[in-house]
Parts: sequence; structure tokens; C-alpha cells
Amino acid sequence: MLLMDVGSTKRDVVDAARRVLREKVAGFVPAHPVAGKERAGVEHAEAQLFDGRPVILTPCNQTAVDRVEQARALWTALGAEVRVMTAEAHDAAFAAVSHLPHLLSFAFFAGILHQPQARDFLALAGPGFRDFTRIAAGDPAMWRDILMANREEVLRQSGQFRAALSGLEQLLKSGDAAALAAVIHEVSLARSRWSMDAARGGSAGGR
Amino acid sequence: MLLMDVGSTKRDVVDAARRVLREKVAGFVPAHPVAGKERAGVEHAEAQLFDGRPVILTPCNQTAVDRVEQARALWTALGAEVRVMTAEAHDAAFAAVSHLPHLLSFAFFAGILHQPQARDFLALAGPGFRDFTRIAAGDPAMWRDILMANREEVLRQSGQFRAALSGLEQLLKSGDAAALAAVIHEVSLARSRWSMDAARGGSAGGR
Repeated sequence: MLLMDVGSTKRDVVDAARRVLREKVAGFVPAHPVAGKERAGVEHAEAQLFDGRPVILTPCNQTAVDRVEQARALWTALGAEVRVMTAEAHDAAFAAVSHLPHLLSFAFFAGILHQPQARDFLALAGPGFRDFTRIAAGDPAMWRDILMANREEVLRQSGQFRAALSGLEQLLKSGDAAALAAVIHEVSLARSRWSMDAARGGSAGGR
Repeated sequence: MLLMDVGSTKRDVVDAARRVLREKVAGFVPAHPVAGKERAGVEHAEAQLFDGRPVILTPCNQTAVDRVEQARALWTALGAEVRVMTAEAHDAAFAAVSHLPHLLSFAFFAGILHQPQARDFLALAGPGFRDFTRIAAGDPAMWRDILMANREEVLRQSGQFRAALSGLEQLLKSGDAAALAAVIHEVSLARSRWSMDAARGGSAGGR
């Protein structure tokens, strides 16, 4: 029997599967289909949901190779693009490009809300704010679970972020405009390059 | 004579105007049209650019009242919605809802780039990442100038953000899933409300 999950974190799922399935874990293929929408429920079902979307499979040592191939065939038939990696690599990457941005967006919005001028500030917020905080509207139960399940990697990534933020704050404090422009230039260039890669289908499309 | 600027920060402009214009500062009306696009240059001109967009006027004590009304009439004729506030209130609000998000997006992207697995991470980045980092592609010279000109307010807002982030990190460390969900719930609700207000035209649309 082929068993799969479709969760956004994988190490915790693999641990639970090992614990519960025991020797039957050979039939379990952890899967993360990187697709979905804001609205849940069967009435929002969509036949094309997985078309061209990445699905990450994270088999462990005990997973049977033919089950992985079966899972790959199933997702491929649904139109998805299958990638295989370790649960550890998966969780590290998604902490960096998905879970941390959510945490930062939650923290940023909370930081605004807790100021007395919150209403005045929000009345002046525009498109940049809208895009930056779109992910702050995520489902609370789902994001509680994802952040808790992957908290080690999320906290590690948060540390990387804090170091980068401190660096920029230091440049502001010391008035080093040239160094500040250099960092923004590097980032702006990398973001444009990423955007072009993503448009060419070189990028995945995680949550 | 009516003089105006169209910069994104206002206290530094008012200071410079006082210094340079001296008694002629009465004719100077500092303005921030909250509109624009990624591409600069007259070949990208657009007659509808200010349609329904907010324009903030920040007159100082010496500004002549009839000049403010002249400026208001001009921007209104261009289709903009004029608001008047102090330069201080303007800079505080835009630090919160525009300048800080840019700083955070720059820092977040720089934090990814400085890790050895940057390429692997970026290959898995999707729509959430795309929206969160869209503002990281901003023009380096312009953002250097904005962040430097408004650095006091930006650093103050960064402090508010850091406090909120530390709070969330603490919840992750202590495994307090219920409190984490409560914060996300509050933010998610406020973000949805903001979104509806913005759609009704209640919100401005800053950069």
C-alpha cells in the first residue's frame, strides 16, 4: 500500500510515521504539493490545481524505492513536477523562503497594531504594504502548526535575518549611505534575477 | 510663486527649504504624491497616473494658506485625493507602512543571499516569497535616500518590529502554540479588515 501525506513540513511527519507505522513505514512517501488556495473545502476543488506545480517527495531510509516511483507517477499524472530531497533539506529550504517570511509578516503587522497610531498608519498604507503583508492573512491554525513543527529551522533563519537587519540598521546609524546603497543594489539585482528565473519556470512556487 | 517638491520624505525637505528659500518658504508647499511606477523616464509618462491616488501636503508654519489651497486645487485637478498633515506625522506614518517594510525586505533577501544554500533555497521560493520580496527590487539610489532621510523614524519602527518578532520567537521557543495562534489570528483578522477598507477606497496606497 502507498501512503502519503501532503503537509508543509516534513521532519515531524517522518518522525510520526516511523513511530506509528513501524515496519509499514516502507510504504509511506512523505509529500509536499506546493499548491493550494486561500479557500478550503471540496466546493473549491479545482482539477488543474497541480498543473505545473512542484511536489516535493522526502523519502527516508526505510521507504521502499518502488513506492517512491509510484508516488512520482501519481503526481506526474496530475500534472505536477516532482522533486526528491531529504526531509531535512526540505524543512531548511521552506523555513528560509516560506516560513520565515510568514513569521516576519506576522511580526511586522503586530508591531503596527500595537502602536497607538495604528489606525492613522494603516490609512496611509499602499501597494507595497499590501504585497508585503498578503501572507499575514494566512490561516492561524495552519501557520501555528507549520511554525511550531519547523521551529528549529525557523529560529535559525530568523537569526540569519536578524544579523542582516542589524547590519542595515548599523549603516543607517553611522550614516554610511554608500554601503547601504551597495546592499540594496545587490539585493535588488538578485531579486530581479530570481524573478526572471521564476518566469522561465526555473523556480518552484512554494507557499 | 507656488513651489512644490514630490519627495517621499518630508521633514528633510522642509528643513532644506527653510534653509535655502528663507522668507520665500511661504510659497513652498511640500507634497508627496503617493503614485509612481517601477520605470522612470518621460517615455513611461501616463496621463492617469494620479487618478484617485493620495497626495499628502505637509505645509509648515511659514507656508502661506493660499499657496496650500493652490496646491490642493492643482492636485485635485489631476484627479488626486489631497490630504494635509504635518511633515512629522507624514514621516512617522510612512516609516511604519512603507520604509520599514522595504528595510525588512532588503534584510530578508540579504539574509538568504549570504547563506551557502542560497541557490537551493531560491529555487524553491514561490508566490508568498514573490509578494514579500517584490519591494526588495526597488531602486537602490532612491531607497538609500529615503531610508537615510527618515532614518530616525525608520529605526524607531524597526525597534517596534524587533519587539514583536522577539515576542513571537519566544512563543516558538517555549512551545506556546495557543498564544502563537492568538497573535496570528489577531493579525490575520486585521489584515483582512485593512484589505476590505482599502478596496472601499478607505486606504491610501503608499509606496
